[in-house]
Amino acid sequence: MSSDEKFLDLGFAKLDTDRKRRTGFAEVVFCQSKADDYLVEIYKRLYEKEGSVFGTRASEHQYELIKELFPEVIYDPVSKILVIEPKEKKERIGQIAVCTAGTADLFVAEEAAKTIEYFGGNALRVYDVGVSGIHRLLARMDEINKSNVIIAIAGMEGALASVIGGLADKPVIAVPTSVGYGANLGGVSALLTMINSCANGISVVNIDNGYGAAYMATQINRLAVFGGVRNE
Amino acid sequence: MSSDEKFLDLGFAKLDTDRKRRTGFAEVVFCQSKADDYLVEIYKRLYEKEGSVFGTRASEHQYELIKELFPEVIYDPVSKILVIEPKEKKERIGQIAVCTAGTADLFVAEEAAKTIEYFGGNALRVYDVGVSGIHRLLARMDEINKSNVIIAIAGMEGALASVIGGLADKPVIAVPTSVGYGANLGGVSALLTMINSCANGISVVNIDNGYGAAYMATQINRLAVFGGVRNE
Amino acid sequence: MSSDEKFLDLGFAKLDTDRKRRTGFAEVVFCQSKADDYLVEIYKRLYEKEGSVFGTRASEHQYELIKELFPEVIYDPVSKILVIEPKEKKERIGQIAVCTAGTADLFVAEEAAKTIEYFGGNALRVYDVGVSGIHRLLARMDEINKSNVIIAIAGMEGALASVIGGLADKPVIAVPTSVGYGANLGGVSALLTMINSCANGISVVNIDNGYGAAYMATQINRLAVFGGVRNE
Amino acid sequence: MSSDEKFLDLGFAKLDTDRKRRTGFAEVVFCQSKADDYLVEIYKRLYEKEGSVFGTRASEHQYELIKELFPEVIYDPVSKILVIEPKEKKERIGQIAVCTAGTADLFVAEEAAKTIEYFGGNALRVYDVGVSGIHRLLARMDEINKSNVIIAIAGMEGALASVIGGLADKPVIAVPTSVGYGANLGGVSALLTMINSCANGISVVNIDNGYGAAYMATQINRLAVFGGVRNE
Amino acid sequence: MSSDEKFLDLGFAKLDTDRKRRTGFAEVVFCQSKADDYLVEIYKRLYEKEGSVFGTRASEHQYELIKELFPEVIYDPVSKILVIEPKEKKERIGQIAVCTAGTADLFVAEEAAKTIEYFGGNALRVYDVGVSGIHRLLARMDEINKSNVIIAIAGMEGALASVIGGLADKPVIAVPTSVGYGANLGGVSALLTMINSCANGISVVNIDNGYGAAYMATQINRLAVFGGVRNE
Amino acid sequence: MSSDEKFLDLGFAKLDTDRKRRTGFAEVVFCQSKADDYLVEIYKRLYEKEGSVFGTRASEHQYELIKELFPEVIYDPVSKILVIEPKEKKERIGQIAVCTAGTADLFVAEEAAKTIEYFGGNALRVYDVGVSGIHRLLARMDEINKSNVIIAIAGMEGALASVIGGLADKPVIAVPTSVGYGANLGGVSALLTMINSCANGISVVNIDNGYGAAYMATQINRLAVFGGVRNE
Amino acid sequence: MSSDEKFLDLGFAKLDTDRKRRTGFAEVVFCQSKADDYLVEIYKRLYEKEGSVFGTRASEHQYELIKELFPEVIYDPVSKILVIEPKEKKERIGQIAVCTAGTADLFVAEEAAKTIEYFGGNALRVYDVGVSGIHRLLARMDEINKSNVIIAIAGMEGALASVIGGLADKPVIAVPTSVGYGANLGGVSALLTMINSCANGISVVNIDNGYGAAYMATQINRLAVFGGVRNE
Amino acid sequence: MSSDEKFLDLGFAKLDTDRKRRTGFAEVVFCQSKADDYLVEIYKRLYEKEGSVFGTRASEHQYELIKELFPEVIYDPVSKILVIEPKEKKERIGQIAVCTAGTADLFVAEEAAKTIEYFGGNALRVYDVGVSGIHRLLARMDEINKSNVIIAIAGMEGALASVIGGLADKPVIAVPTSVGYGANLGGVSALLTMINSCANGISVVNIDNGYGAAYMATQINRLAVFGGVRNE
Repeated sequence: MSSDEKFLDLGFAKLDTDRKRRTGFAEVVFCQSKADDYLVEIYKRLYEKEGSVFGTRASEHQYELIKELFPEVIYDPVSKILVIEPKEKKERIGQIAVCTAGTADLFVAEEAAKTIEYFGGNALRVYDVGVSGIHRLLARMDEINKSNVIIAIAGMEGALASVIGGLADKPVIAVPTSVGYGANLGGVSALLTMINSCANGISVVNIDNGYGAAYMATQINRLAVFGGVRNE
Repeated sequence: MSSDEKFLDLGFAKLDTDRKRRTGFAEVVFCQSKADDYLVEIYKRLYEKEGSVFGTRASEHQYELIKELFPEVIYDPVSKILVIEPKEKKERIGQIAVCTAGTADLFVAEEAAKTIEYFGGNALRVYDVGVSGIHRLLARMDEINKSNVIIAIAGMEGALASVIGGLADKPVIAVPTSVGYGANLGGVSALLTMINSCANGISVVNIDNGYGAAYMATQINRLAVFGGVRNE
Repeated sequence: MSSDEKFLDLGFAKLDTDRKRRTGFAEVVFCQSKADDYLVEIYKRLYEKEGSVFGTRASEHQYELIKELFPEVIYDPVSKILVIEPKEKKERIGQIAVCTAGTADLFVAEEAAKTIEYFGGNALRVYDVGVSGIHRLLARMDEINKSNVIIAIAGMEGALASVIGGLADKPVIAVPTSVGYGANLGGVSALLTMINSCANGISVVNIDNGYGAAYMATQINRLAVFGGVRNE
Repeated sequence: MSSDEKFLDLGFAKLDTDRKRRTGFAEVVFCQSKADDYLVEIYKRLYEKEGSVFGTRASEHQYELIKELFPEVIYDPVSKILVIEPKEKKERIGQIAVCTAGTADLFVAEEAAKTIEYFGGNALRVYDVGVSGIHRLLARMDEINKSNVIIAIAGMEGALASVIGGLADKPVIAVPTSVGYGANLGGVSALLTMINSCANGISVVNIDNGYGAAYMATQINRLAVFGGVRNE
Repeated sequence: MSSDEKFLDLGFAKLDTDRKRRTGFAEVVFCQSKADDYLVEIYKRLYEKEGSVFGTRASEHQYELIKELFPEVIYDPVSKILVIEPKEKKERIGQIAVCTAGTADLFVAEEAAKTIEYFGGNALRVYDVGVSGIHRLLARMDEINKSNVIIAIAGMEGALASVIGGLADKPVIAVPTSVGYGANLGGVSALLTMINSCANGISVVNIDNGYGAAYMATQINRLAVFGGVRNE
Repeated sequence: MSSDEKFLDLGFAKLDTDRKRRTGFAEVVFCQSKADDYLVEIYKRLYEKEGSVFGTRASEHQYELIKELFPEVIYDPVSKILVIEPKEKKERIGQIAVCTAGTADLFVAEEAAKTIEYFGGNALRVYDVGVSGIHRLLARMDEINKSNVIIAIAGMEGALASVIGGLADKPVIAVPTSVGYGANLGGVSALLTMINSCANGISVVNIDNGYGAAYMATQINRLAVFGGVRNE
Repeated sequence: MSSDEKFLDLGFAKLDTDRKRRTGFAEVVFCQSKADDYLVEIYKRLYEKEGSVFGTRASEHQYELIKELFPEVIYDPVSKILVIEPKEKKERIGQIAVCTAGTADLFVAEEAAKTIEYFGGNALRVYDVGVSGIHRLLARMDEINKSNVIIAIAGMEGALASVIGGLADKPVIAVPTSVGYGANLGGVSALLTMINSCANGISVVNIDNGYGAAYMATQINRLAVFGGVRNE
Repeated sequence: MSSDEKFLDLGFAKLDTDRKRRTGFAEVVFCQSKADDYLVEIYKRLYEKEGSVFGTRASEHQYELIKELFPEVIYDPVSKILVIEPKEKKERIGQIAVCTAGTADLFVAEEAAKTIEYFGGNALRVYDVGVSGIHRLLARMDEINKSNVIIAIAGMEGALASVIGGLADKPVIAVPTSVGYGANLGGVSALLTMINSCANGISVVNIDNGYGAAYMATQINRLAVFGGVRNE
């Protein structure tokens, strides 16, 4: 096992320890289908390096595994997030709205909301406001517009993103979900809906990718709070 | 050339002269890609039989062709409808709303509206009320709900159908259009959106098929006006 | 937990209690993949509000769950419908034909038929009349045509919808099913068949969506029985 | 340019002069997109070898080209067949039914019928008998069943093949066509319909491939007329 | 439960008892996903009517079920065929070659071969002769060509059908199989290969549809043995 | 022609004059396939209302048309943008990097860059830095990272977005382009690449949608310059 | 059971014993879904003939099966390779780099690496060097370029192949993997990325096909070590 | 316009002048859809740098354009290659077989063959040897096997690659072509065939990508002639 300053070489994996410096975010663990030994090793190494570890798509079994080593690890069965929180917590900044079309989209929404919070932002949860009863969304729209960025999560036909896009004055990150059946094609239909949106200010991430949406939303939220480049 | 009471055998075509008795609608001509000779023959025969002819997807060239024989034929370049109106007109009945998401969907909407009118119904045109500016739709919703059935026409992401479906108390026939670009896949994306709609009371016809939507809407409109079976 | 007159906010869900006023239909529960706690809460709340609850795609396990609270709940393992019937029953009106191509399509057909009956219509069941033995359909066609609207359910190649469309004088709602194998693509092939139908008066809902077809059919049936707008 | 007994090597092409011995059919020319020089050379060489040449998917321009060399060449603009007939004609044998759903499918049907006739069979043309008016097909079914094999040609939803399959006692070769629009996907929808047919005794060739269907139908027709292996 | 001469109405199913007269083949049972009660009823009724029953895609469990009633029933775990043979057997006629590319395609091949034999034909089994070692096919080609019709079964890239098509002088029915992985798309890749074949005399049935291929092959085999129409 | 404060009803179109108040952006004209009369009317009305008009996907012909009325209109044949600039220009703010993989992607990049500039932002153009010669990108990466947000434009395999995503500390909006051939599927391949990106902080807009990417990038750029919500 | 010199006919299989002479590689066993009896028979026969057997995609159960007969058989649960090594080992030649984008791709990489070693080559393992942290790849590039051929393995968006292709001076064989979720379409997205690569010197094998990549890489490695044709 | 040693920055393009050092191949121009000015500038700059320029997918018009500046430029209308040959020619080395299934695939084959020759290899042209007449291929197989690497080019069902793969002892690079119609899906069907090949030693490039196949074949040919790494 070799190592240098920019990554930690475990043979089966090369932990990107330069990531925080380069991108402002420490490496996150995609737990799904990782072998037991590898996962434990990765949690140990990252914890040593960063003082906290954040994993997505973890199973109940993986929770048991890590808990033996780190009894303080927390597992949320809805979002499948497996996290060792840092010792000291900072105050959360800004606001990101997390909206879903239905109750069945919650597993994606909670992955997004918990990621936002881990990365230090405030998450505004607005669930089950799909277009089949649009008054539920309209009743919350003012509140949503007080966020710096909006995450719109929907399965089936995915129309929520377009409707929010037409009503919002903030960027919208759309997340298609695999919720639905038949011609939903495992979420591809909702993905196509969102990519073809007639509304402006919408961009799209992978099906069920709550984490990815939260990551980009955090980048935008930070820019809005801390400011960015003002003039070239 | 043989013939019997139920169809007229022209060799290259068998005109379904039994259709009116069987379904309540005379045969309509799908003009697209019909050979010149065939088209003229079909218009002649149908006119003899029915006293009027209604053709869809006709070209400018086909208009010229039929005009030589029937100077009274009318051609609409937007909807591509080529019609010889019947001598005596009946009063129109009921009402069918024809809604579009954008201006670019008009060619489909006019095919639908003119078909409705030819078959004896009133068409309420509500154009360019897509979800990117939903207040335009909300402003017309009361009027729309006074129809017996609603046709929702949209390209790109096709979200209009779901939004109308959530607000209406009448059946909605959704027509995806080929309007858009890139991942619209020639209208397949809008079709998938509509088929997966989370709203109820929506069913879908083929891409750009304004005629088909109008046909079914007319059946429903007639049922609403003339009544149907009350008890088994 | 907040609430207002138009929806009931349970946090994880917003029950659309305005739906009956707006659309004429009370909210229905899509049981599939709902968490146990959520489902129980939703059945309780809806029952308080409406005096009856209708759920689709329920599992045996969900039946056990609800039965503890509502011993009168009824579960049908074929259609997967889980219903608490209202105290007083109204007489059923009109008629809707529910036709299937094969025996394997029954789970969709019964979802449709039971939905029709819950919403107060008469359902005419015509099963296993697919085009591989078309005399079986022809023998029932007169009876079918005495309905106000027809639901045509078929998997594999889905040709039934076109054949009925050519013989009927009533609107046809086509339901593709996932029945078949190989190139049936989980029902997408039958969906494409129905969307491309050469017959008129046909529109299509999602794969296996017996409920959706029944909902729209009920809207049409009511229009035919109670009448709609006569003149603009 | 080299040559041996089994193929004629023209460098850019290797004419399969062994085919007649091996398969019972001389090589046929697929004219589409062949360069002018190559086409002329191929017609010349095949004519020398076989005394007749049969080409499919030929353009008007290619007709002019070959006519300079072989004034007796015949071109049919519907089927796009470009043929130099053999000097002496044999009596035609057996019978193959060629059925189409619509008038727009004729270009495929005539490719099939003319191929059948070139290869020495009788073609029974039954055009425009699609399922939207099924009485037109039923009226001809007895006649169709007197053939040794049936070719069923249809675009749009392609249901004709299944219906014929259910009524016939002879093998059915189904040809999907590119006729239609929107979700017909250039003929792929009809292809899927036919491949998933619930009726038995149906197999499928490529979209618009009238020639391929006629070839296989001819093989079957010959077996029926001349007989094949009786016992192993 | 009603009944007439042409079908037997069991409510959940309408047994096509006219099929043998109309097509020359008695109805066959597609066992997959049939409810236990229905399957038993169907076997009973068909046995009463026909004196034998042939079922495809049966499970071990279904075998146990039917065996209680009919101890003489035979089940083959490879082909999944569940058959009650007729009391008296006729001599088999003609010959049909059943070829596979690999060993993994056997489950389809045996479904085909056993169907052929049940319908009274001789099946020539030629297994594991795929194009990765083409000498294995060439060594058997003479024998194959002594059949009246050839069934070519292949998964993965499905090239076997084209190669046999180029070497055979008999019609080839191609069966794509779901054998393979990755971009085989569950058999769709092999299906596309076969549909696009550059060889002539090939047509295609659904993925894994050994029964369908055998049915059509039997029709052709019977024509070759008993003869068909000779002149129009 | 009716009108109210929130939209201007032209019958064929409803100009969303409320958009600027609601979203911070005036309505933009999608010129493609708009009828001549409609386009002229829309430019006139929007100019009256807003004092400037910005149109995308305009043709040479449409430029001539508008130039007759507004001689000051400017047309860029690469980006197809047709703009009437406002009288007074504001200083541009912030910075958005616009990167392309190849030279052939310029038509999309210029649509994005010109949109950014019209909406008041600075665009940093970094063209032809695709991954086949990655040193070209690395040489510019510091400069790119000084932007508030990055637009990554690529056709063919679209790998540029992932590579930039791995190197950047700012949000990346990925634009797949239709550049390529064969299995690029008109840009769908690049779209899939970008949606599946293993790098974080990437979201995706429609194929060739430079305008959409620029719109969202402008929203983010404004947040970074003017600041957003700091604490909930 | 017959047999000749070029293949061994087991009825259910025809072992290609001519393969080594013809291609330089002995037949390899694709274990997946082979019946127990068949697998044992094949291992026995191949071992008699070749003195070693190499099987891919073997299950734990198949390992137990073969171990009874050949206690020396070795099974690797990551790569699923089940091998009976030859008695005498030769020195390994040349070098082939095996690179992966992530840790989850290891099961494919180890299938490739072990195949390379079985066929007598040296494998250089370079794992987890995906483009989200490209410095990890750049740090190893010199080493990689000292191979004769490179295998690039990646799931999700599959960008690794293009980046290596741009940096390498050796042929690259790209292997898409099924690793990922949502719009990865089971590996089809990565496959499309690699097929559309803007970099040169890249060709692609099937999803997860580590064996196939290793086979071709071995052919190239041998050519590089032993030399090939120098002049025509 | 800036510049450094590793690339030449033209603003609209960054010529990769480091490529020859890095990969052994100078930059090649993909002419298709390049603007006139850009193309001329690129040819000029590359000629200055390299003394020769090789362009693919050039149009007749682009030939005229470059000819004005470089009268010695050569254009081949079949392969669409536009080349300024270097002053001094080197002797060609090794051998690469270029095989096609049909005559229609020649445009791809000549792109490959001419690329091979430009890069200094010998090309063995073996055209029109598709599997519908496999004796044509068998007759040339010995000759083909005397090459260091084989390019197999085929449209339609693309079976040629598998058949050659089974007979060859050299690596095979397969090129699917867009030749065919209907379900060939513009070459995607042939691509799928080749990717799923049951034969070993085959990898695949993009549809119609003769250049890409030739590039990789040249890398392999050079390794075979000049040798590579012998031991790690």
